[in-house]
Amino acid sequence: MRMRFDKELEMLNGEIEKMGNLITTAIETSVKALVNQDMTLVRIVNALEMEIDEMEKTIEQHCMTLLVQQQPVASDLRLIEAALKLITDMERIGDNAEDIAEITKFFGNKTFINKLVHIPQMAEATISMVKRSVTAFVTKDKELALQVCYDDDIVDNLFLTVKNYLIDLIRQDVNNGEQAIDLLMIAKYFERIGDHAQNIAEWVIFAVTGEHMNTDNIGKTK
Amino acid sequence: MRMRFDKELEMLNGEIEKMGNLITTAIETSVKALVNQDMTLVRIVNALEMEIDEMEKTIEQHCMTLLVQQQPVASDLRLIEAALKLITDMERIGDNAEDIAEITKFFGNKTFINKLVHIPQMAEATISMVKRSVTAFVTKDKELALQVCYDDDIVDNLFLTVKNYLIDLIRQDVNNGEQAIDLLMIAKYFERIGDHAQNIAEWVIFAVTGEHMNTDNIGKTK
Repeated sequence: MRMRFDKELEMLNGEIEKMGNLITTAIETSVKALVNQDMTLVRIVNALEMEIDEMEKTIEQHCMTLLVQQQPVASDLRLIEAALKLITDMERIGDNAEDIAEITKFFGNKTFINKLVHIPQMAEATISMVKRSVTAFVTKDKELALQVCYDDDIVDNLFLTVKNYLIDLIRQDVNNGEQAIDLLMIAKYFERIGDHAQNIAEWVIFAVTGEHMNTDNIGKTK
Repeated sequence: MRMRFDKELEMLNGEIEKMGNLITTAIETSVKALVNQDMTLVRIVNALEMEIDEMEKTIEQHCMTLLVQQQPVASDLRLIEAALKLITDMERIGDNAEDIAEITKFFGNKTFINKLVHIPQMAEATISMVKRSVTAFVTKDKELALQVCYDDDIVDNLFLTVKNYLIDLIRQDVNNGEQAIDLLMIAKYFERIGDHAQNIAEWVIFAVTGEHMNTDNIGKTK
C-alpha cells in the first residue's frame, strides 16, 4: 500500500516538474517574443498556455484521486494539499506569460521608446525563482524555498526601477505616454510572476513544516 | 452518514458566505479609503485582509477533512474541489484590496489630479460580481455564475477607459505622470478582482456541471 502511494507521489512530482518546465518555457518565450517583436513566438506562448491549463487539470484530478482513495495523513496530506494549491499559481504564471504576449501582439513592430533592459532582467529573475520553487517542491527543500521568498524583493525593486524610468521617459516626451504605460503593464506581469513563485515556495514550506508562512516581510528592503 | 455530510456541506456554504462578506467589505472599504483619503479605513482593510487569510485556512482544512474522511464522489467531490480552489481567488481579492489600500497610504493627502469617477465605478462593478459569484456557489446557480462571467467585460472596458483617460491627463501635463501611473495600478487591481470573480464563477459552473469552462471569450466586446 505504502509502496504504491510512494509511487503515486513520485508520479505527482514528475507531473509538477513537467508543468514547471512548461511555465518556464512560456515566460522565456514571452520575453523573447517581446524583445524581438516576434509574432510566431507570441503564438507559441498561446499554445503553451493551453497546454499548461490542461496540465493543471490533470494534476488536480490526480491529487483528488489520491486524497479520496488513499486517505493520506500528516505530511502526506500536506504534500497533496500543497500540490493542489501551488498548481493554481503555476497556471496563473501561464496566464501572465500570455498577458505579456498579448501586449507584444498589440505593439506589432512599432519602435520601442527605449532599449528594453530592466524588463529582460525581471524575466531572468522570475524564471530563476520559478525554477527553484518547483525544484524546492520536488526535493522538499525548505531552504531553497525560503531563498525564493527572499528573492522576490529583487523583482519588486526591478519593478520600481522600471516604473521610475518610465515616468522619466514620459517627462521627456508626453508622446511616450501610451507605450510607457503598456511597458509598465508588462513589468507588472513579471512582478506578479515573482509573487506566484513566492506563493509556490510558501506552499513548499507548508508541505515540509506544516506551517503557513507569510514571507512578505522577510528581507524586505524598504 | 448522508445527513451528516449534508450538514457539513451546509456548514461549508456558511463559511464561504462569511468569507464572501469579508472580501466584499474589504473592497468597499478600500475604495472608500481611496476616495476619502482616509488612513483609518486603510488600517481596517489591513485587518480585514488578515481575517480573510485566516478564513481561507479554516475552509481549506474543512475541505481536506471532508475529502479524506467522507470520500465523496461525483457532484459532492466536485463541490469540495470547487470550494478548495475558489477560496484561493477569494483570498487573492483580499490581497488586491490591500494593494489598493497600500497605494492610498502612499498618496497620503496629496490632491488628486482628477476627480475619481471611473475607479469607483470599477469598484461597484467588481463588488457586484464578487457578491453574485459567491451567491452562485451557495445556491449552485449556473445561470447566475454565467452572468458574472459575462460582466467581466464591463470591468475590462472600464479599465481601458481609465487607461486612455490617464494617458490624456499625462499629455495635458507631464507632472501628472507619477500619480496617473499609481491610479492606473489601482484600476489594474480592480480589473484583477473582476478576473478573480470570474474564476470563482467558473468554479461554480464546474461544481454544477462537471465542465471546466473557459468563459474568457463569451460576450467579448472587442
